[in-house]
Order: sequence, then C-alpha cells, then structure tokens
Amino acid sequence: MACESEKWVLMVTAQTPTNIAVIKYWGKRDEDLILPINDSISVTLDPEHLCTTTTVAVSPSFDQDRMWLNGKEFSLSGGRYQRCLKEIRSRASGFEDEKKGVKITEKDWENLHVHISSYNNFPTAAGLASSAAGFACLVFSLAKLMNVKEDHGRLSAIARQGSGSACRSLYGGFAKWIMGKNDDGSDSMAVQLADEKHWDDLVIVIAVVSSRQKETSSTSGMRESVETSKLIHHRAKEVVPKRIVEMEEAIKNRDFESFAHLSCADSNQFHAVCMDTCPPIFYMNDTSHRIISCVEKWNRSEASPQVAYTFDAGPNAVLIARNRKAAALLLQRLLFHFPPRSDADLKSYVIGDKSILQDVGVQDMKDVDALPAPPEIKDNIAAQKYKGDVSYFICTRPGRGPVLLSDESQALLNPKTGLPK
Amino acid sequence: MACESEKWVLMVTAQTPTNIAVIKYWGKRDEDLILPINDSISVTLDPEHLCTTTTVAVSPSFDQDRMWLNGKEFSLSGGRYQRCLKEIRSRASGFEDEKKGVKITEKDWENLHVHISSYNNFPTAAGLASSAAGFACLVFSLAKLMNVKEDHGRLSAIARQGSGSACRSLYGGFAKWIMGKNDDGSDSMAVQLADEKHWDDLVIVIAVVSSRQKETSSTSGMRESVETSKLIHHRAKEVVPKRIVEMEEAIKNRDFESFAHLSCADSNQFHAVCMDTCPPIFYMNDTSHRIISCVEKWNRSEASPQVAYTFDAGPNAVLIARNRKAAALLLQRLLFHFPPRSDADLKSYVIGDKSILQDVGVQDMKDVDALPAPPEIKDNIAAQKYKGDVSYFICTRPGRGPVLLSDESQALLNPKTGLPK
Repeated sequence: MACESEKWVLMVTAQTPTNIAVIKYWGKRDEDLILPINDSISVTLDPEHLCTTTTVAVSPSFDQDRMWLNGKEFSLSGGRYQRCLKEIRSRASGFEDEKKGVKITEKDWENLHVHISSYNNFPTAAGLASSAAGFACLVFSLAKLMNVKEDHGRLSAIARQGSGSACRSLYGGFAKWIMGKNDDGSDSMAVQLADEKHWDDLVIVIAVVSSRQKETSSTSGMRESVETSKLIHHRAKEVVPKRIVEMEEAIKNRDFESFAHLSCADSNQFHAVCMDTCPPIFYMNDTSHRIISCVEKWNRSEASPQVAYTFDAGPNAVLIARNRKAAALLLQRLLFHFPPRSDADLKSYVIGDKSILQDVGVQDMKDVDALPAPPEIKDNIAAQKYKGDVSYFICTRPGRGPVLLSDESQALLNPKTGLPK
Repeated sequence: MACESEKWVLMVTAQTPTNIAVIKYWGKRDEDLILPINDSISVTLDPEHLCTTTTVAVSPSFDQDRMWLNGKEFSLSGGRYQRCLKEIRSRASGFEDEKKGVKITEKDWENLHVHISSYNNFPTAAGLASSAAGFACLVFSLAKLMNVKEDHGRLSAIARQGSGSACRSLYGGFAKWIMGKNDDGSDSMAVQLADEKHWDDLVIVIAVVSSRQKETSSTSGMRESVETSKLIHHRAKEVVPKRIVEMEEAIKNRDFESFAHLSCADSNQFHAVCMDTCPPIFYMNDTSHRIISCVEKWNRSEASPQVAYTFDAGPNAVLIARNRKAAALLLQRLLFHFPPRSDADLKSYVIGDKSILQDVGVQDMKDVDALPAPPEIKDNIAAQKYKGDVSYFICTRPGRGPVLLSDESQALLNPKTGLPK
C-alpha cells in the first residue's frame, strides 16, 4: 500500500434512475454474461420519484467487501455482484488526493476492500425494477470511486452483467440495449436514443397493483420461456427487430400514436410469450387486465391514443400519458375505477408528482367518490369499481441518468468509519 | 305438393354432444365459409351431461321456417342458419310413408317449411360451446328429416358453416377437423380419430367460473387475432401441424403424459395469441390462473401428469383426469381451493356424474370445510381459498356422437301442431 495514513476513507455517492422497457427484454442467449435474444428500448423514470442512491467507500481499514441494502447487511457473494466488482476493479486507475493523504496505484485496487450502501426511494418489493437501478448505481459509483476511465457504453456492459436491464439505467431519457453479436458480450451494451428533454410532454402514472400471487422471478421466468415457448424465438427474430426500428423512429419524431401502439403491443406480446411458457407464467392479474381495458376503451374513443401502457414481470401498470392534460384525465379514470380503501389517505394513495391531482380537481376522498363515470363507458359492467385493488399510484415523468451527489450529507456511509450512518 | 292430406307433420328428434378442443381452432382463412387456418382436435363430451336436443319438423301446413331455443322463439334470418338450411335442402331426397299418407319428392323440399326446437341440458350462457352442439344437432336432425344420404364427413362440412367447431360434434370420442385446402371449403370437414370406448378411463371435470367481465365473442376475437397478432400465423403454420401429429399419436396410444402436455401447451398458446391481439383479449381470469397453478403444482409433484387442462374462449376450466382416481383427487383439490358459498347446496355445486363425490368422501358442506390442503402445497399463499369464485363443477367423461331419439315423448315439438310442447 502506497499511502501513508491508514485512516482515510474515500467515498463516492451516486443516484441512478430505474427504467421501464417499452420494447421488452425477455430471454437470454447467455445466462452467465446476461446476453439477450433481442434488442430492447426503455424510458428512464425521473429519479426524484424512483431511484437508487448508492454510496461506495474504500479504505485500507476495511477487511472485506460489504454491502447494505436499505440499511440491512446483504451478502455480496452472489455471482452477479462478484462479476461487477471484478470488472470494475480490473479497469481501475491510480488516484491521488494529497490533501487527504490518499494515494492509490492501479495495482492497489486489487487488495482494497469496498463498503457499499444502497437505498431505494420506493418499495423494493413493489416490482418496480429495483435491480436495474441498483446494479446501474453500483457500477456507476464504483467506476467513479475507482477512477475508471471508460464511457457510459462500456459501463453499461458491466452493469448488464449484474442485471440485464440495468444497462439501460446508465442514461436519461430513452435508451436502447443493443443485444450485440460477440460471444464475450463485449458489444452488448446500451446507448442513449434521446435525452430527457427531447420529449418532456410525457407524464407517467404507475399503478402499484395489490397481488395475492407469488410471482415467478424474471430470471427463472425468462429461462423457462426460452426453453419451452414455441413463440419466443419467432418474436425475437421476426417481430422485435422491426419494432425496434419503428420505436426509434417514433421517439425521434415524438410520434405518440406510434409510440403508444408499439408499447402496448410489445407489452402484450411479452405477456403472451410468458403464457406460452410451460408451465405458463401469469404476471398480470384481473386488475392489470381491467386497467388495460380502461385505457383501450378510452384510447379508442379519442381521435388518437392518449395513453400507452406497459407491464413488466408483475401486475403493476406503467401508464405513459401523451401530456399533462391526458395524465389528469387518466388519473380521473383510474381513481374512478380503483378508489382507495375507505380508511386510506389520498396523500399516500397518489404519490410522486402530486400536482397532477390538482389538475384532476381532486383534493380529498369526497372528491374521489364524486368522480363521474368516464364518458366512453356505456354499460354497468364497464363502470364497476374495484376498491382496494390498486395499492397506490406514483405520478412521475421521464428523467435524467445517473448523477454524482457531491454533498457529503447525502452519503449513506459515515465518512470516518465507512459504515452505514 | 304431391301429398294428399295437408294435415301431417313429419318429425325427427336428435341429440348431439358438445366438444372441447385439445388442439385449438383459432382463426379463419374464410369468414363466410368458416374455413380455419389450422387443423384442430377435440374430445366429445358425454351428452348425458352436456348436449343439445333438437326436434325438426316439416309440414305442408307450416307457412315459414321457425325456430325455438330453450322454448323461446329465435330468428332464423342469420346467415349461418340460412346457409345450413340451404345446404341440407339442396341434398334432400324423396320420402314416402304410405301409412301416414306422406309423400315428398326431392323437389318438394324447396317449398316445405320447417320448425326447429332446440334445448340445451346445460346453461347456454355458461360458455360451454353450446353453438357447437347446437349447429351439429340442427344439421344432423335436418339431414335425417330430409333423407339426406351423405355421410357424417359431408354433414360435418355443413355444420361447420353454422359454427366452426360444430363439425367436430358429429362424432363421439375424439375428432379431428381437417382444415382442407379448397377455396370452396369442400374438404374442410371433421373425421373421427377414435370412438368413446377407445379411451374410457378419462374423466372430465368442468369448473364453471364466475365472471364479472363481458367477454369478446369468439367470432370477433379470432378475426381480430388474424388481423393483428404477429404470432398467430407462426402458430398456425409452424406449431400446430406438429402438435396435431403428436396428439393423434397420443390418443391412439392412450399416452396420457403426451396428451396432457399437448393439451395444456396448446390451450396456453391459444390464450397467448389472444393476448397478442390488438386490443388484447383476456378470456382467462385470476380464477382460471389459479386452477392452472393448482393442476401444474400437483402434476409436477407426481411422477407423471394426473390432469390435463384446457380453456376455451372464456374463464371456464375443462380438466381431463387420467382416470377416476385422479378425478377424485382433483375434485378434492378443487373443492379445497374453491369451496361453494356458505349458503350453497353441495348437490347443485357438483353436478353431472355425482358418483365421483363419493370417491372423494365428501357428502356435505362440513366435509368440504374439513378437506386438508393438498400435500404438494408448501406455503400459505398457495393454500388460499377462493370461496364463490367457481359457480359449480360438472363431472363428466368422453361421450358418444349424435343419436336419433325415436321415442316420440322426447320430441320438443307437438306431433300434431308442430309447435313447441
């Protein structure tokens, strides 16, 4: 060790967004390297409402690599963590901070241990792609700490080895994960299609759906699909490539009609492939189906679609409205069909960007009860209410990529001990 | 008219089974002629529990074609009825009954009107393929009445023009609908693969599932799938042909493992195609999914599958057990997860062949409440109960094809007036 004092703790804190795929990733061609069978495209969600914050620290006083997730210690022994750590360490460069008395040579990194503390600003168990934000943040913050001089593309290829969709969380706005061709995965990485300012009309409402079912993990689900579905390969080879081209075009031109059509069709096809798996995988439930019906009915009653929907490996709906006005009309419909339980507080039922609630003209539960049935609904079955079937709504928008948080007060580790604050 | 007395009424009564596809029909290549995009295979259900009875009558005193369904008059103006009537009339032969003073020449049939009365021994609205049994019975009974000298294959091609799957109801046991190649549909007809005695171990339990959703009709559903699904053509061209060969082989060899695997996979793929339709079609609901989970979990805990499942265009499950013992164990599991509402009567909750209830050792509601959780279930979520989510169960078996009922007391029309009794 080339540093004189053994007391220093070097720390970096970063914040990384989660993302939602609008052209879905489902199926790997290499399980270890996490190489997909098709390209995918995602929207990055605003980290103000959904993100992971991670502090990584290094110190000669640490005697092993350790990690804490939402304050609880968590084993780093999993292959995916090990692979990310190894890939970043192998790219580390020398670092010197004379003031702090820190000097680390390229070779030192191999023997220095790290402490990692990570925190999600949304419920981890809600099925909101926490592993995407988590691995992206781990790789991004470690790369900064270890003075890795690679661009976001190369970093995305490392994050990919932690969790496939994490590679898309290295960018704000819209990102594409290019599946690549190489056996070693070196060309399987994400690129940015457009930043978050490119299409800032979009408003996103997430319905976190209550579920009594135990869900199949996406890792085992996609493995079973690749092994047993008779439709997945046709999807990957014949359907997705065309959709990727069309989706890039739609995003470039801010063509909401095409964007909505492609997002909905691709989400449904992903769930179709899950159902074609043996045994079949059901991620959506009756509530998910009802949300789709509500959106489809409304979209068809308008001259052009107002809202796109997409569902990941769970029952939650991610609804992308073409603008604020459409988002308010959407929230009105959602609150009509899925009012909170009578004992709920509206403030904890609609979270995130609450200003949309004001556009809806809803201030309290009485206003929710008074919401009229949407005009496109013509019969009693379609106007039914399903109280309590949605746990809560999150209002958000497309957002920025990873950022460093330089304010030390935001760090999750104590700058002296390197342990969670 | 070549007959002397104008008072006679000539009548035929027939009974025709319904059928359930195990390799599904979904998608037409010709909407008018009802020509499918792939072959399909079905099991005929025992008419004792699920059938249509139809009486057709002809008399010079009738002044128009009329029809009654379950006692209510019903318009025959629909194209599908007209087509079946026309096809049968064009094949009618002369008939003479000297005793009754009836003489009808081939040409007379064009000017004679018919009365038709049809009755289903199961709820029409329950989504149990009533149109298949109905059109098969209409065509079969009219053909007998009009002395049509064509075999069941030719008759099946006529029934097909009423309702596609009706062509398979012309046979007992197992039937295959051959899609055919001709533009005029002349080679699109059903054949029998094996009669009902060939594999008489099988026991069928139908779960009629309560639903709050309004369902897409199969006619419009399959049209939308053909127009918008990117997977349906791959299914029809690449997947189904192989499955048809394998299913024929499984039936021939009474190979339950292959039969179950193919039935379940093909049902799931049909629903996958529905989900891949734009807008997506959801026929199965959470209860359907739970029934599948229950069966899959059990099958996987045994050395080989005990039960096959298949779902048509609705949430009802058709469960085919390998034998009576498996059927009893199945019913035990189903009653555990889906007990009747507390105010229900067990006798109306399990209908059809009630003897299976005795095998289960369940005589009243107290016995249902006392049923233990199935041994393959390991956690509380999987052991949940869903009271009231199933309306009732029908226990049945594979059954015979159409038969004539010669006992006039079973006729649905008055032999003197030709009007419903």
